Amino acid sequence: MNGDKFDRKEIESSLYGAVICDALDSMGYRNQCIRIPMRPHTGITKLFGRCKTTLWADMYDLDPDPYALELEAVDSCRPGDVLIAAAGGSMRSGIWGELLSTAARNSGCVGAIVHGAVRDVDKMTDMRFPVFANGTCLYDSLHRQRVVDIDVKVEIDGVVIAPGDLIFADLDGIVVIPSAVEEEVISKATLKVSAENITRDAIKNGMKATEAYKKYGVL
Amino acid sequence: MNGDKFDRKEIESSLYGAVICDALDSMGYRNQCIRIPMRPHTGITKLFGRCKTTLWADMYDLDPDPYALELEAVDSCRPGDVLIAAAGGSMRSGIWGELLSTAARNSGCVGAIVHGAVRDVDKMTDMRFPVFANGTCLYDSLHRQRVVDIDVKVEIDGVVIAPGDLIFADLDGIVVIPSAVEEEVISKATLKVSAENITRDAIKNGMKATEAYKKYGVL
Amino acid sequence: MNGDKFDRKEIESSLYGAVICDALDSMGYRNQCIRIPMRPHTGITKLFGRCKTTLWADMYDLDPDPYALELEAVDSCRPGDVLIAAAGGSMRSGIWGELLSTAARNSGCVGAIVHGAVRDVDKMTDMRFPVFANGTCLYDSLHRQRVVDIDVKVEIDGVVIAPGDLIFADLDGIVVIPSAVEEEVISKATLKVSAENITRDAIKNGMKATEAYKKYGVL
Amino acid sequence: MNGDKFDRKEIESSLYGAVICDALDSMGYRNQCIRIPMRPHTGITKLFGRCKTTLWADMYDLDPDPYALELEAVDSCRPGDVLIAAAGGSMRSGIWGELLSTAARNSGCVGAIVHGAVRDVDKMTDMRFPVFANGTCLYDSLHRQRVVDIDVKVEIDGVVIAPGDLIFADLDGIVVIPSAVEEEVISKATLKVSAENITRDAIKNGMKATEAYKKYGVL
Amino acid sequence: MNGDKFDRKEIESSLYGAVICDALDSMGYRNQCIRIPMRPHTGITKLFGRCKTTLWADMYDLDPDPYALELEAVDSCRPGDVLIAAAGGSMRSGIWGELLSTAARNSGCVGAIVHGAVRDVDKMTDMRFPVFANGTCLYDSLHRQRVVDIDVKVEIDGVVIAPGDLIFADLDGIVVIPSAVEEEVISKATLKVSAENITRDAIKNGMKATEAYKKYGVL
Amino acid sequence: MNGDKFDRKEIESSLYGAVICDALDSMGYRNQCIRIPMRPHTGITKLFGRCKTTLWADMYDLDPDPYALELEAVDSCRPGDVLIAAAGGSMRSGIWGELLSTAARNSGCVGAIVHGAVRDVDKMTDMRFPVFANGTCLYDSLHRQRVVDIDVKVEIDGVVIAPGDLIFADLDGIVVIPSAVEEEVISKATLKVSAENITRDAIKNGMKATEAYKKYGVL
Repeated sequence: MNGDKFDRKEIESSLYGAVICDALDSMGYRNQCIRIPMRPHTGITKLFGRCKTTLWADMYDLDPDPYALELEAVDSCRPGDVLIAAAGGSMRSGIWGELLSTAARNSGCVGAIVHGAVRDVDKMTDMRFPVFANGTCLYDSLHRQRVVDIDVKVEIDGVVIAPGDLIFADLDGIVVIPSAVEEEVISKATLKVSAENITRDAIKNGMKATEAYKKYGVL
Repeated sequence: MNGDKFDRKEIESSLYGAVICDALDSMGYRNQCIRIPMRPHTGITKLFGRCKTTLWADMYDLDPDPYALELEAVDSCRPGDVLIAAAGGSMRSGIWGELLSTAARNSGCVGAIVHGAVRDVDKMTDMRFPVFANGTCLYDSLHRQRVVDIDVKVEIDGVVIAPGDLIFADLDGIVVIPSAVEEEVISKATLKVSAENITRDAIKNGMKATEAYKKYGVL
Repeated sequence: MNGDKFDRKEIESSLYGAVICDALDSMGYRNQCIRIPMRPHTGITKLFGRCKTTLWADMYDLDPDPYALELEAVDSCRPGDVLIAAAGGSMRSGIWGELLSTAARNSGCVGAIVHGAVRDVDKMTDMRFPVFANGTCLYDSLHRQRVVDIDVKVEIDGVVIAPGDLIFADLDGIVVIPSAVEEEVISKATLKVSAENITRDAIKNGMKATEAYKKYGVL
Repeated sequence: MNGDKFDRKEIESSLYGAVICDALDSMGYRNQCIRIPMRPHTGITKLFGRCKTTLWADMYDLDPDPYALELEAVDSCRPGDVLIAAAGGSMRSGIWGELLSTAARNSGCVGAIVHGAVRDVDKMTDMRFPVFANGTCLYDSLHRQRVVDIDVKVEIDGVVIAPGDLIFADLDGIVVIPSAVEEEVISKATLKVSAENITRDAIKNGMKATEAYKKYGVL
Repeated sequence: MNGDKFDRKEIESSLYGAVICDALDSMGYRNQCIRIPMRPHTGITKLFGRCKTTLWADMYDLDPDPYALELEAVDSCRPGDVLIAAAGGSMRSGIWGELLSTAARNSGCVGAIVHGAVRDVDKMTDMRFPVFANGTCLYDSLHRQRVVDIDVKVEIDGVVIAPGDLIFADLDGIVVIPSAVEEEVISKATLKVSAENITRDAIKNGMKATEAYKKYGVL
Repeated sequence: MNGDKFDRKEIESSLYGAVICDALDSMGYRNQCIRIPMRPHTGITKLFGRCKTTLWADMYDLDPDPYALELEAVDSCRPGDVLIAAAGGSMRSGIWGELLSTAARNSGCVGAIVHGAVRDVDKMTDMRFPVFANGTCLYDSLHRQRVVDIDVKVEIDGVVIAPGDLIFADLDGIVVIPSAVEEEVISKATLKVSAENITRDAIKNGMKATEAYKKYGVL
């Protein structure tokens, strides 16, 4: 993340979603993870960045001003942003695709998380642009879904996502880190990695699970 | 597609589902795509051909004439056909597998699209036979599901599939091209590919999404 | 399977779920396969062993004795066991992960089948530990789910799994072999493999499906 | 039930589904109840009779022989029969309605259980014809669903229903009594009613639940 | 319907949804009925009128202009209008209740059809205001859902509803009559009622279903 | 509620769920309502009391100590208690019925809220015992489900229910009032009833909705 206090590559390689979730848990933030299946669709299975939010609605008539807010959101991304498309899980159309990914990357956007459907999976895979989504749909979003607001608080699966929050996605799921506690979370998660390493090594060396948990208190 | 007016390999490599869907959309055919997840199960992620339809029903008693219509359908496939198994999404048994794939290929069948479950995924993968389906089930279809009609109009997810229609499946989804408009659709889709290439290149060269859409009208 | 009457590696390479299911079907055991999607999550797509069962329940208050029965189950696995986590499909937390896999492997456990969610997919993939599950969840199971019983009869998707039953999982699904009939099942399945080979070869050599079925009675 | 060994009115008034289910449970028949919601739609909330089965399939093309098997089933009902429409839960059309109810009643049919949708609810209510179903749908079944077999074994929610089995439906659910054990079931259920009456009276008179269960072993 | 070409009370008492659906079917309009369960919630089970459409979207942040379009829609209803709340089936809040019903009735609105949740069921029942909906939710819509457009084409369950279309709801379901064909539909439906009366009387008098269908061609 | 600070009958007649929910909303408690459909099953549509919690788990083997904790919970209810059966929505059996209702009423219990299935609906209706539940199931809970804990925090649909919290259920849904804020909530809800009465009267007298909201700020 250019210019951000966190080094994106460093965090993607040293941390993982489960320890971030555990850190949040230990601080009393027990509702920060998306439980519904939102899989990586483009072969890249880790994504970390700041949330750039868009709110979508289904529509059934002609759109008087197609793509307007959507394009504004894409063009106003800042380096390190993750585009959040909160579409309520609608599978009505593929609301994110190759051209948007290309344009968003121009603005520094590092990936997209879509609570709904995407298309152009093949091409976004070639681009190596990280996209997590509920699934795919061939339909163009034109006259089917539209952005009704940007840079507002949204929710996916009951998890609140405010603009500027950090988000971390991997094969296990997606976790939102409220910006107010981000430093503490990253720091605690880093410590948890070390603690788990010690426990794992002990077990690898033959320690029974019961004994390991008694000794290290980690599982 | 041997003897068909379209070159299957050419179309699979130059087109993709999204532009075909967009072409149909532009002609007022706005209900041609299957939205429910029917994934490629055998590692091959593109499939294009003409629909050979079979209609399936669940059953719970002994089948007096097992496999009869199913075998007839398989043996009467013509080169370039895609076997359509319209089973209403039933997961009661794996209605398509290795032996049927082998026999269908003998008749020139180039793949199967199963609205239901398949089995023998490993072996069909080894065969490199394209199969799109809702999922898998270990059970044999014997006395569990049967073909009740062949060469009739069927539907998957509300999309009408008539015998002889073209069908195109890729990672984004499945789109049905009514035979009456197939030439116009393929032609429009080919043009759309070019238009998208121009837009993509402009964006890749740094054009903002808003500007690109204003200039090219494509997204 | 060390010390077991069956050679695990041999069976994993020579048999597959569909023929085992067919063998059970032919013996009147027609409800032995799990139909709901429980996919391999760690890249290993075959698993055979004896069932070590655990029964899980969701919880919402502080766990007075965290992990107790779970650790006991893990530590009491015997060589060739497959850990069965019957959690009713709950996605409340990731109840199986890297540390448990490591400890279970210490006891000879060869894989896990989780009717619910797992986490640490990346690391379990590195371990090459076979895990079949409904999906993933980032949350720790602590204070969210717990083992309420071990070594009892459980069910997944209506299929009864008794401690000591054999289980076979592959890309097509999961089948349970009651221990009382295990030898007959393995023997019949082995014969079915041969019968299918003959039919497949005939079809590969150009025999029509209708004729092959008439001649061999296998499909 | 005219001419049947059981007096339908007597059984409807003295028994209820739960005790029949308990009787079957005690005899080892533990999978005889439909768990999915199939509510009474015509104001009559109890139904007992013998199963006259029909098996339905969805269709999407013109029906070459509309209503044929369906009418045959209706006209061949015998007094005391309950029409079972096993349509796999399809909500594609309303497959049972006023005219069929009228005709079926002519043949002695005492009610219908529809695993799917019905229509003409208002008029069937006026007729006081008992109908249990999953829901309603305005569409005519013509060219949408058809009967593909009659007088065969069917299943609803995994419960086997053979022609001639007894069935009992009330507000709690639907239970199937295999004809082979029907006398023992009815007899055991009748005894269970008495046992429950004694327990209930004791509790009504102030006995604690714990004590009542210890004393009577019924709950 | 005051001032409308149709007499609402007359149509509600003489027609019903199934014959309207059959009339549309016979004219080739085969996708006019809502299949998902949207039940009457206020004790009134018939509703006929012209569609006044509102389109809703879920939201998760503070609404800068609460209720604005919603109130405008309510206040601009004309006599005989049915308020259509197309909320995509969202159960996020109860978007229709007593105060809105009271105000809508002031404008001549005769009922509401809500693809989502309502609240104040008890009071709307006392008001005898017809409300068909998917269910109920206690939450206020404030900051949870909002109207994003009014007087536009919407869809419920894939059925297109244009402003000014007629709609008919009863216990069997909901059917939309496109305004362009409304007179023909009402006329055909009226004829169908007569035809069914004749068939019903014949069956009531003992005619077999098979014979009645052969003679009258109606079922 | 005998001996409680609140008069149950008074609150059931003067308040309703929606205003309680609004009061909680206004205090920042925005996650107190159960959104999933849990309908009144016994004809009584209002229920208010203090939560007596039980936590249930599915089971598949013989219960070594049937009904033990369940009976303890029933017998330890205090006057004004509402029995909460948190069974995770399982429809595996009918976990609440007539005998338990009778015994619970002996202890002063005023109703039951079951996140799962009940049975004996007819008899509990005769008893006039309020029961809200997800549905019904004929199966006895014996060896199918059991209470694994009592008097602990539970959740239904993500809403936390602590022992001693107040709960209010009506036709619109179910709302939980944390005991720490119960007096403020009841007081605010009472005020909201008056405010709504004024707005309703104004609208009834012909005020437009837009004007009424501008003037009273209530909807």
